[in-house]
Amino acid sequence: MEQIKLNSNFLSIPESYLFSEVAAKVAAYRKAYPEATIISLGIGDVTTPIAPAITEAMHKAVDEMADASTFHGYGPEQGYLFLREAIAREDYEARGVDISPEEIFISDGAKSDLGNIGDLFSAGCRVAVTDPVYPVYVDTTAMAGRAGRFSSGRWDRIEYLPATAANGFIPPLPSRQPDLIYLCYPNNPTGTVLSRDELKVWVDFARDNRCIILFDSAYEAYITTPGVPHSIYEIEGAREVAIEFRSFSKRAGFTGLRCGYTVVPEALKLMDAEGNTISLRKLWLRRQTTKFNGASYIIQRGAAAVYTPEGLRQTGEQIEAYMDNAHTLLEACRRADLEAFGGQDAPYLWVRLPDGVSSWEMFDRMLTELNIVCTPGCGFGPAGEGYVRLTAFNTPEATREAARRLLNFKI
Amino acid sequence: MEQIKLNSNFLSIPESYLFSEVAAKVAAYRKAYPEATIISLGIGDVTTPIAPAITEAMHKAVDEMADASTFHGYGPEQGYLFLREAIAREDYEARGVDISPEEIFISDGAKSDLGNIGDLFSAGCRVAVTDPVYPVYVDTTAMAGRAGRFSSGRWDRIEYLPATAANGFIPPLPSRQPDLIYLCYPNNPTGTVLSRDELKVWVDFARDNRCIILFDSAYEAYITTPGVPHSIYEIEGAREVAIEFRSFSKRAGFTGLRCGYTVVPEALKLMDAEGNTISLRKLWLRRQTTKFNGASYIIQRGAAAVYTPEGLRQTGEQIEAYMDNAHTLLEACRRADLEAFGGQDAPYLWVRLPDGVSSWEMFDRMLTELNIVCTPGCGFGPAGEGYVRLTAFNTPEATREAARRLLNFKI
Repeated sequence: MEQIKLNSNFLSIPESYLFSEVAAKVAAYRKAYPEATIISLGIGDVTTPIAPAITEAMHKAVDEMADASTFHGYGPEQGYLFLREAIAREDYEARGVDISPEEIFISDGAKSDLGNIGDLFSAGCRVAVTDPVYPVYVDTTAMAGRAGRFSSGRWDRIEYLPATAANGFIPPLPSRQPDLIYLCYPNNPTGTVLSRDELKVWVDFARDNRCIILFDSAYEAYITTPGVPHSIYEIEGAREVAIEFRSFSKRAGFTGLRCGYTVVPEALKLMDAEGNTISLRKLWLRRQTTKFNGASYIIQRGAAAVYTPEGLRQTGEQIEAYMDNAHTLLEACRRADLEAFGGQDAPYLWVRLPDGVSSWEMFDRMLTELNIVCTPGCGFGPAGEGYVRLTAFNTPEATREAARRLLNFKI
Repeated sequence: MEQIKLNSNFLSIPESYLFSEVAAKVAAYRKAYPEATIISLGIGDVTTPIAPAITEAMHKAVDEMADASTFHGYGPEQGYLFLREAIAREDYEARGVDISPEEIFISDGAKSDLGNIGDLFSAGCRVAVTDPVYPVYVDTTAMAGRAGRFSSGRWDRIEYLPATAANGFIPPLPSRQPDLIYLCYPNNPTGTVLSRDELKVWVDFARDNRCIILFDSAYEAYITTPGVPHSIYEIEGAREVAIEFRSFSKRAGFTGLRCGYTVVPEALKLMDAEGNTISLRKLWLRRQTTKFNGASYIIQRGAAAVYTPEGLRQTGEQIEAYMDNAHTLLEACRRADLEAFGGQDAPYLWVRLPDGVSSWEMFDRMLTELNIVCTPGCGFGPAGEGYVRLTAFNTPEATREAARRLLNFKI
């Protein structure tokens, strides 16, 4: 009898042991040394509570749901207009970028959208990623059957574009023409950014080579350097080649609330096999109306409160506090003679290790000698070996204590 | 130059005009007769506000998010254990069914899960659906490339299993061996159910023919007839062949809050091409950890409150009120000599029209003569022609007024 047909692409994806191995090592150490005060600079999760302007808006929304005259049932799959209008105005118009509410799609988070966007493309699409990279781009590419075969830590149909200290974290353009290019700026895990001119190189490449850039700007709110683009649409012509993914997770602490959005400009059009012009915005709308039922009304009200004067001020202060942490860690690395990148326009520091020191060796030493948890860089891709990632998301107190411990560290 | 490769399956899906055409006709009528009091028995959305036990829990969760000592960042992708344990206990153990929290996956709604579950299977899977049917099963099947070609209102690789008055709404078993069978009981749109013995026929068929049943029980809370199964796992052997999808939307009014869950039993195992045993539960966990970041903490707290004594009582009263509406409409149909099915164990009535009267004719007559909005049955599939669907989700007052209008209706 014939077997039910599984998606065999799922079966070829190696289990990711990075975070489970980190957790196992930390747990083992904690058991052996129960008195140790371990500080996590590992996982990229926020710690600051939700700002008052936002919780107030959510309380109000809960009350609305309790009253028949203000109750909200099914909302628009694309998201409420009140939120899409606020985004269009504050995140785009305020930066001189013309994005209409019809081009904005609210979701339960950028991770969902970054995975689901693959539904629009065929399994035959060729993919390029920078390296190191947020593993979700690679794993969802593999699940969709676009990655080829996995061997020696790489998929043979994905082009990996290394971004290391050697090239100043500016990855080279693809050598083969890809269909889809994942870019994330400010970058996770390296914490580095591209200038306007550097990003323009990618937009021009995509235009010349008919690629689509999947641009993850989940960390744009952390940019402090003037002139660094917050949105890819600040670059001329990007509307015709780029989809942008954003999140309230790091901008306003929504990791547990769940809200993000995706911009698919109307100008982003492709041709089908018969030469007909196809609007990707319409395809995404079709995908979302069929396989999604909108984000929670309460959470959308909370997200809209981010854009009120109080919300902007309060979340801005939270981000400043995290960036103070980043600067504290940068200074500690400098004094400890550790070469650290990022941390200026992103909540991540990317620490380069001396030749011959591996990511896991550094992880072990930091855990056992300093009681600090970092993330081994090799978990983010082949070019991440020889680095570790530190995050700025712990409390100021814990971060300062971690910085003190780093001062006496000799690698 | 080569084109970027679109998922061509998206391009072959016909636009669904059902609900937009309904909306357009209602809007046109409203414009012509602004004084008319139109009552909607059309769309399947709830109207009763969220129960106090639930809003109280959500207010408390919002407060937790506002305090550093109780703040919740990223939650488990599979959902919080407090909610999975409550579901395992109240929805399964209380009915004598052994489902563990590890087999339960919380999401932002059953619609997402019903679409996303397709990620686990190959494009070559053969699909069977009952007819009429919730359009999402068919459209997501088509998006995944499993539907074949569309012509004359049907996809040629989907087997449609008609459920009509002629067979007592008990669809025939598939004539060709399918890989995936979508079943929804209590049924949307017909409002009918299967008895334990009738459902056992499907489980046995799936076991004998190595199919997977995708069982949508979004309306199980509306079952009043003793002995009608609430879960497919009440049937012996179902754990090895069925995935069950549930929702808080109709059970507790969560259409705007967004929460549902999917059960993938550990016993549901398939073989890969090499004959290795593959756990579908593990594949789904992998899918969810890669392409989803968990449901909102606040909403999960609200969902857990459904299972408190107050929550169970309050949501039970809401469901009773909707079912009173259903009985009001059933009685009105009886008096108006309209043959109506469903409405006993589901919030939907499926009204059979006299020979020669089409779904849209009935829609037009009800709108213009009674100022009542229904849903034309043809929108749910070929076998829905000659029926209209009425929902019990309006208020008791509006439903009683609709019933009064129906009394004087002569088809």
